[in-house]
Amino acid sequence: MASLELERLVRLLARLPGLGPRSAQRVALAMLKRRDTLMLPLADAVRTCAEAVRPCSICGNLDSVEPCGVCRDPVRDASLLCVVADVEDVWALERAAIFRGRYHVLGGTLRALDGIGPEELGVDRLLRRVAEQGIGEVILALGATVDGQTTGHYLAERLRPLACTVSRLGHGVPVGGELTYLDEGTLDAAIRARQRVA
Amino acid sequence: MASLELERLVRLLARLPGLGPRSAQRVALAMLKRRDTLMLPLADAVRTCAEAVRPCSICGNLDSVEPCGVCRDPVRDASLLCVVADVEDVWALERAAIFRGRYHVLGGTLRALDGIGPEELGVDRLLRRVAEQGIGEVILALGATVDGQTTGHYLAERLRPLACTVSRLGHGVPVGGELTYLDEGTLDAAIRARQRVA
Repeated sequence: MASLELERLVRLLARLPGLGPRSAQRVALAMLKRRDTLMLPLADAVRTCAEAVRPCSICGNLDSVEPCGVCRDPVRDASLLCVVADVEDVWALERAAIFRGRYHVLGGTLRALDGIGPEELGVDRLLRRVAEQGIGEVILALGATVDGQTTGHYLAERLRPLACTVSRLGHGVPVGGELTYLDEGTLDAAIRARQRVA
Repeated sequence: MASLELERLVRLLARLPGLGPRSAQRVALAMLKRRDTLMLPLADAVRTCAEAVRPCSICGNLDSVEPCGVCRDPVRDASLLCVVADVEDVWALERAAIFRGRYHVLGGTLRALDGIGPEELGVDRLLRRVAEQGIGEVILALGATVDGQTTGHYLAERLRPLACTVSRLGHGVPVGGELTYLDEGTLDAAIRARQRVA
């Protein structure tokens, strides 16, 4: 590419997750083909978000108001706290529109090999929050992965002394899932979690 | 997502090629995690490119100077013209650093079903350029797809009356390619294009 401006754009785009050098070129080209309807609005949206959107000081969710929309919402059940690894998980649960309590975003899961311990995840801050806000139930909504389950077990141990119920998400057959495609671990969990119907 | 700014960013990102609603969320989140080192520079790069980078009025290549760097380069062979479908193809050929003539970007290939005919591709402009600039050879560097080959045949017919040689790229085994993974069409072309070695 002859243009330094274009090279810089492609280099920055290639650092985004899921994009490599080639797909970054394709993205840059697609932008340039829709300069007014896509490229300029996108430049504006990226800058506006960078300036306005911050992690909520209470729960860690991202929003342009402080505290975030979930923490401000008076209709939400303040005694119910859902602990998630990342902001993406908040979005997934909000899409499902089933949970009406508040969130606590850890910002990751425990991974000793990568140097991510309880301190990096702010576990003490979570414990303080649970104690001070009089939380009645903490739902550990972590992924059913090794890291997620390790983190869940650790948090359950730390939360045990506090006066609150601690629960984790149910395991089983995903809705819409066919048995033939499920792994042994999931089938085992589904059999254990079977429910009487008659 | 509670924040309107964030929702707008994700909606715009999801319109880029290769990104859908979920990957756009992941990209937005990755940006927000690297606000100063990635997000703000990216906002700036997108805006700068949108304002500075334009299609070259001679060849259609994208650059921040007019005419583009390739058309301005006095060392390039002005009698050799490489016709490509898109700017990406210019980039691919420039990466290979083997072609030292100039380019002509059609901006697509003929696709009657999508209403893309000779007029949309500016074929008359190409013919005028070849005649007026005294081009000695036109290389049709179009993809070996149905659309690419149709476009190539059409352009060859239109260029035939002019006083220039017209060629197309050679077909055959891609360098690094294993025979077992090649389709019949490629193997057929490779046998026909066989070269005597002894």
